[in-house]
Formats: sequence, C-alpha cells, structure tokens
Amino acid sequence: MRREITREIARYAVETKFDRLPDNVRIEAVRSFLNWIGCALGGCREPALRFAAAYVAETGAGAQATVIGHNFRTDVASAAFLNCISSSILAFDDAHLPTVTHPSGPAGAGLFALSERTSVSGEEFLNAVSLAIEVTCRISNVLLLEPSQFNIGFYVTGLTAPIGVAVAAGRLLKLDERAMTWAIGLAASQSSGFRATHGTMTAHFRPGHATRAGLVAALLAAKGFDSSENSLEGDKGFVDVFSSDADLNRAVDGLGERFEALLNAYKPYPCGIVIHPTIDACLDVREKLGSPEQVADVSVRVNPLTLRLTGLREPKNSLESHVSVYHWVAATLLSGRAGLSETQQDCIDDPQVAALRRRVQAIPDPAIDKDEAIVEVTCRDGSILRSHVTEPRGSITRPMNDAELDTKFRDQANFVLAPERTEKLLCACRGAASLQDVGTEISAILA
Amino acid sequence: MRREITREIARYAVETKFDRLPDNVRIEAVRSFLNWIGCALGGCREPALRFAAAYVAETGAGAQATVIGHNFRTDVASAAFLNCISSSILAFDDAHLPTVTHPSGPAGAGLFALSERTSVSGEEFLNAVSLAIEVTCRISNVLLLEPSQFNIGFYVTGLTAPIGVAVAAGRLLKLDERAMTWAIGLAASQSSGFRATHGTMTAHFRPGHATRAGLVAALLAAKGFDSSENSLEGDKGFVDVFSSDADLNRAVDGLGERFEALLNAYKPYPCGIVIHPTIDACLDVREKLGSPEQVADVSVRVNPLTLRLTGLREPKNSLESHVSVYHWVAATLLSGRAGLSETQQDCIDDPQVAALRRRVQAIPDPAIDKDEAIVEVTCRDGSILRSHVTEPRGSITRPMNDAELDTKFRDQANFVLAPERTEKLLCACRGAASLQDVGTEISAILA
Repeated sequence: MRREITREIARYAVETKFDRLPDNVRIEAVRSFLNWIGCALGGCREPALRFAAAYVAETGAGAQATVIGHNFRTDVASAAFLNCISSSILAFDDAHLPTVTHPSGPAGAGLFALSERTSVSGEEFLNAVSLAIEVTCRISNVLLLEPSQFNIGFYVTGLTAPIGVAVAAGRLLKLDERAMTWAIGLAASQSSGFRATHGTMTAHFRPGHATRAGLVAALLAAKGFDSSENSLEGDKGFVDVFSSDADLNRAVDGLGERFEALLNAYKPYPCGIVIHPTIDACLDVREKLGSPEQVADVSVRVNPLTLRLTGLREPKNSLESHVSVYHWVAATLLSGRAGLSETQQDCIDDPQVAALRRRVQAIPDPAIDKDEAIVEVTCRDGSILRSHVTEPRGSITRPMNDAELDTKFRDQANFVLAPERTEKLLCACRGAASLQDVGTEISAILA
Repeated sequence: MRREITREIARYAVETKFDRLPDNVRIEAVRSFLNWIGCALGGCREPALRFAAAYVAETGAGAQATVIGHNFRTDVASAAFLNCISSSILAFDDAHLPTVTHPSGPAGAGLFALSERTSVSGEEFLNAVSLAIEVTCRISNVLLLEPSQFNIGFYVTGLTAPIGVAVAAGRLLKLDERAMTWAIGLAASQSSGFRATHGTMTAHFRPGHATRAGLVAALLAAKGFDSSENSLEGDKGFVDVFSSDADLNRAVDGLGERFEALLNAYKPYPCGIVIHPTIDACLDVREKLGSPEQVADVSVRVNPLTLRLTGLREPKNSLESHVSVYHWVAATLLSGRAGLSETQQDCIDDPQVAALRRRVQAIPDPAIDKDEAIVEVTCRDGSILRSHVTEPRGSITRPMNDAELDTKFRDQANFVLAPERTEKLLCACRGAASLQDVGTEISAILA
C-alpha cells in the first residue's frame, strides 16, 4: 500500500491554523502576498492582459471580484485567471528555488478573488496563502527532487499549483476532509502545461489557468462533485503519470514543521531566475568598467540548465526577453540596470544592445551551480574584467529584504495607482494579519 | 527540423470544407452529432450534473447557450462543459477504436454551444464536428500508436480533445492560420487527466474540461492572445512531454484523404468499450440458457487491457459499474439485457447480481484481441455453454446501423423530452446539413 498522501494533505489542509505557523512562515505569507499584488499591478497593462480581459468580458459572470488595473469586475475564477496572468507576465514574481516553481501567483490570485466573494479574515487569508504555497511546492518536490525521474519539458507550476490552490480555497470554503480529497483530484485532473510556449503569452496563460483550475476544483467539490480519494498516489494517478520512482514522503514528511515558503525567493530582476546570477555578475563588472563602450567581448559561464531554459539568442519582444540570458548580459552591461526598462521594446531593439547580444559567448558548465555564474568582459584596451557570483540577490542566503520588496512594490504599483493609494495598499498588505475582511478592504483600495 | 505538424494542422483547419469531405465522412458527422445529443439528453439528470450545474449557476456568465435538460442558459464555455459531462456520464457515447479516445462528446458539446452564439449553417457545423473528431483522433494516434511509448495512465481524451475542439471552434470563429496555431498551443497547454479518477464523477469532469479548454483556446486566440507556433512538435512541447519516439507523420499524413471518423464506434452498451465483446458473448449464452438460475459458474477470457481498465470487482454505484467487467457479466446473464437499467443502483445492489459477480472468474490472455472475448458458463446440471465473440456489436465490421442509433437516441431523449419533441429533434439532427442556423434551430427544439 502506497502512502495515502492525498488524504494526509487533505487532513492537514482541514486542520491548519495561522496561529500554529512559526513566525518566519507567517512573515513570508505577508511578503508573498505583498510581492504578488505588486507584480499584478506591474503587469496588468501588458498587451496580453488587454486580449485576455476582452475574452473574459464576454465570458466571465457577475461582479464578484476585482480585475486588477481594469475597469470591470467578474466572477471569482475569471478574476483569478486574469490577475495571475498580470502577476506572471513580467516574469518578476517569485521562484521556489529547489524546483523553480512559481507558487505565489496562483496562490495570491486565487485566494484574493475568493476572499472577495467569501468573507475571510486576514489570519484566515494568510493561512490559506501559506497552505497553497506549501502544498504546491511539496508536490513539486515529489516530482522534481531525487529519486524522481521527471521530464523537464513539463511546466511544473502548471502541474502542482492547481492542487495547492484547491486545498487552500477548500480551506476558505470549509470543506471537510473527504471533500478536500475530491478537490485535490479535480485539481490534479487539470494539471497541465509544457515549456515549448515559453516566450509567448501562453507562458503566462499557464499559471492563470492553474489558479482557475484550483478554484474550480474547490468550488465543485463544495457542491458535492466527487473524485477519487487517492488521486495523487493511486495507480494511474497524478504522481504515476508525471514522474517515475518519486518519493511520496516528500509531500507529507514534516508537514506543519518544515516549510517550503522559506525556500521561496522573490525575484529582484524581471526574468527567468536562472539568469539572475549572471545579471549580478554583469552589474558587478559594469561598476568596474569606465564606460560601456569599453566592452569588446563577453563570455559567460553558467549551469547547463540556464541555457536549456533561457538560451534564446535573439528576443523579439518583452516576453522573449524573459528567456534570453544573452539579452540580459548585453542590456545590463550597457545600461547598468536590470529592471523593467530592460524588458521594453526600445531596449530590445536598441542596435547597441542587439550588437552586444550577438557577441556574448555563453558556455554551459556542469561544474557551475544553478546559483552561480562567471562573467568575463574583454575590454577594447585588452584588459579583462571578471566577476564570479555564488550568492545572487534573491537567493536563500541573500534574500530581498523588506525595504527592497517595498521598493519593488512601489515601482510596480505606481504604474497604475496614485502614490497615496500605493502607500495605503502597501500598509494594508503589511498589516494583512489584522484585516477583518481581506476582500472588502483590499479591493476598496484598488477600486 | 521536425515536421511542423502544428502549422500543417492549422492550415488544414483553415481550408477544410464540408463539400470536400467524402460522403461516408459526412454521414458520420451527422451520426456523431445525433449520437452525442442523445447521450447528453440521457445523462443530463444524473447527480453529477446537479452538482456541476449548481456550480455553473454561480460562475457561468450570460445566457449565450443551452444547458441541455436544465432550466437555465449560461456562457458558451460553461454550457459546453456541462453538456459534455451529460453526454459522458453514462459511458454510452463513442470510442475511437485504435486509441479508445472519446471524441464526439467534446466535439458535439463545444461546437453546439458555440453555434448558439455564432450563427453557423448546418454544413459549417458538420464540417467543424468532422474536423474536431479528425484532429483529436489523429493526435491520439501520434501518442498511442507505434512506435510511440505512452503512459496508459494518462486519459487520452483529456490530452487530445482540447486540440480538436480548438481548431474546429477556431474554424467557426474564422481564425487565420497563425491564430489557429495559437489556439492549438493554448489548447495543448490545458491537456490533462489521468485514469485514477475512473469510476468517480471526475472521470466525466475530464471530457467536460477538455471541451471547455478547446473553446477557451479558440476564443482567446481570436482576441489576439498568442502562443508558440510549434507547440505540438517543438522541443519541450506537447508530443515530447506526453510520449517518446512518437511518429509525427501520424498527425498529418493523408489529412483530408483518410478519415478517423470511420474508425469511431458508437457504443451499443453504456460502459467501457473493452467490456463490449464480453457483453455480446454473455447475451449469446443467455439466449441458450433455459433460466438464469441455471448459472453455477462463469469464466471469461479477455485481453489484459480489459482487466487493467475495467477490473473493478465490486462496483458501489452507477459510475463504478462502467469499469466493472464483473458487473456486466453478472447483470447481463441474469437480466438478458445490457442497457441503462443495468447501471441503476437497484441492479448493482441486487443480491443475485452481487452473488454472481463474486463467482465470475476473469482471465487476462494476451492471445485474445481487444475486440474478442470468450465466455464459458457452467450450469447447475453440469453442462457448459460457451460463446466466442470476435466481432462485437459497435465494432468497425459490425457498426450500429441507423435504426439502432435512432432507437438509442429515442431511449435517451425520452427521459427528458416529450415524444413529439424527441421525433422533431431526431429529424432535425438527421437533416442537420440543411439547417440554416444550427444553434437557433436545435436549441428551439430543446427549450
């Protein structure tokens, strides 16, 4: 008999309480939510959102929940879908470092939308955010960490976030343990996505779909729509189809004691997290450079995964820039920055950036860790500048601090909100634990 | 360079026309639609639909499309979702024999709902039905047929029907070739489902989700939401993640010349198609039996796949009966029938049926074909009755004829409609090619 992880997760979801979480986990729940809503504000005016919102305006129901940055409300599932695309579209949200899962987008978007329909206190809400992240990342661990064999072509957030969102939404809907197993089965039945769509709008559809899938699962289970009670571990079940030789214990060992949120990093740069060590090294080299015109040639030594996931040589637009390590090397060395302006079309099309992109040599090296990068710039005068990064910004040993997160939040929120609203929202998010009704209070600030 | 099947399928979808289809393919489009709508009427009052409809009543938008058998209308995607669950829930719909894909539920439900929003002639509609079935089954062929390695735990209809529905819906929405490739990418990004949920309501959620996924993909692509143009064959794409060593040519070789609809069988019995040869053999034995009390013991020899997919010994309810070859042997031998009444709770709970179920011995035998079964009944007087079936009803060599399909249609439609409406609907479906506006005319009969 295989370990009944579906039931164990369901039981944990039914029983978990905010006041039982360790302090540092509660703090990360707040930081996740803050970072999520900032990213949703930052991305909500991108072209993909215009198209997706036009679709939802025709197909979404009622006015249950806020579409962030747009002038209409829609049903809970459609709002979550759109708000998660917004928070994902700049590739600026977060990443669970052991598995490169992006848990906060689906969690934040799904639970915020649901909290607008179902009255939820700040503590219940943060507990649910924490639960969604925990379950999402633990199931990612099952699929990706040893001894599991996993096809890297699958988009892991699309596989596991529906399940995390489903149990957390189920918690807010007060599902019992059995209905919670159904929600898990319904969510896992929608797990989907692969990496070939990276660099297109569909790359951001996938997390939007994942949060919607989790909500749909919980809402259907709440009505009595049933499923298997062993969907995850069962024969021909979720773990069987998406992996082989996986260790089921990773899903449940130490549940409530060890927390994956502590391994989840908020991104300092708006691109694939495997590019981040390289960006740090380029920023470092750039400080030592007299002038960017000095750069003759660049070589970058990175973990092979970096090139497998972000090896696009010639990005054509913002979305493609997220998966082009070449672009970030060129743009960072020339501008001395690595922010949203480096994802804009004028930077991508800049002839100087384009010329330098073509001169970057990137070498995959298995001896280089995923957190590591070596950048070597040959200057026109023949001198060589070198930087070797082993602890990038945003890593576990060097996480973004609160002040950095607040700056990131403000930079994005000010795209859409008047500065006084941005401050009010920041304040409400920082004090989320003491809110009486998250949906009502936060949506009033956004409206 | 791998063959660009995404683009080839997109081009075919944009160009296909009803009047270019061979006569027998046009006939099957009509039969598929007729069979689909009958099954949707047959299943629409099942408990799962009460729960799913309650969920949609809260989350569906507008009144764009008919929810078959229920007193409300909803948005296109939600209507398709519900109507496909209805047509699937009795396991009575159809099966593409080479791959055991169930193409007509997602095709019929998705395209009928869309035809209620977008005015579509009978010929356009049937062309789209034919296209959805063709593309769905061809992609199933890629995944399942040799030399492909495929994990049988995946629910193939959930993987491939979103793509078939997306291109057919895209055809009705008049997408160009590029947008059609996006629709394919968006649909494939939602491909999902595994077999561990068989025997529960979630088994029927999966095709409902598949048709919704296809519609969402086409509707989003129509708004300009983009995707990769090589999602199917691309590196880390659909075919790569769901199979290995697959032959991409199966998707496109002979497109427009050879048709998978001709290998799609309408089910004569409401249960997994791998049980059907056994049912035929039991009906045959039963005719030779003096009285069902004569049965002492039963042994059944079947292809191993039959037991892998339908080896449930003790079904507890109608949904579980679909995947219990033991139940159908017992129920058929005792009642002399294999219809919807054999899926009802009173038959499942009948002590005689339960006792005989426990006495059935089922032997998996690789020498027995999937279309084949041998049933041997030992009578109380010691005599032995035997039947060996190699061409079951509903197989390609012995398909259901029009009169049988009409009877199946009437039996199910009369659950919900007054007999004169049933006849009117049957007549409209049979003459679908000459309808001016499918959505308006068919929904008026259903209303």
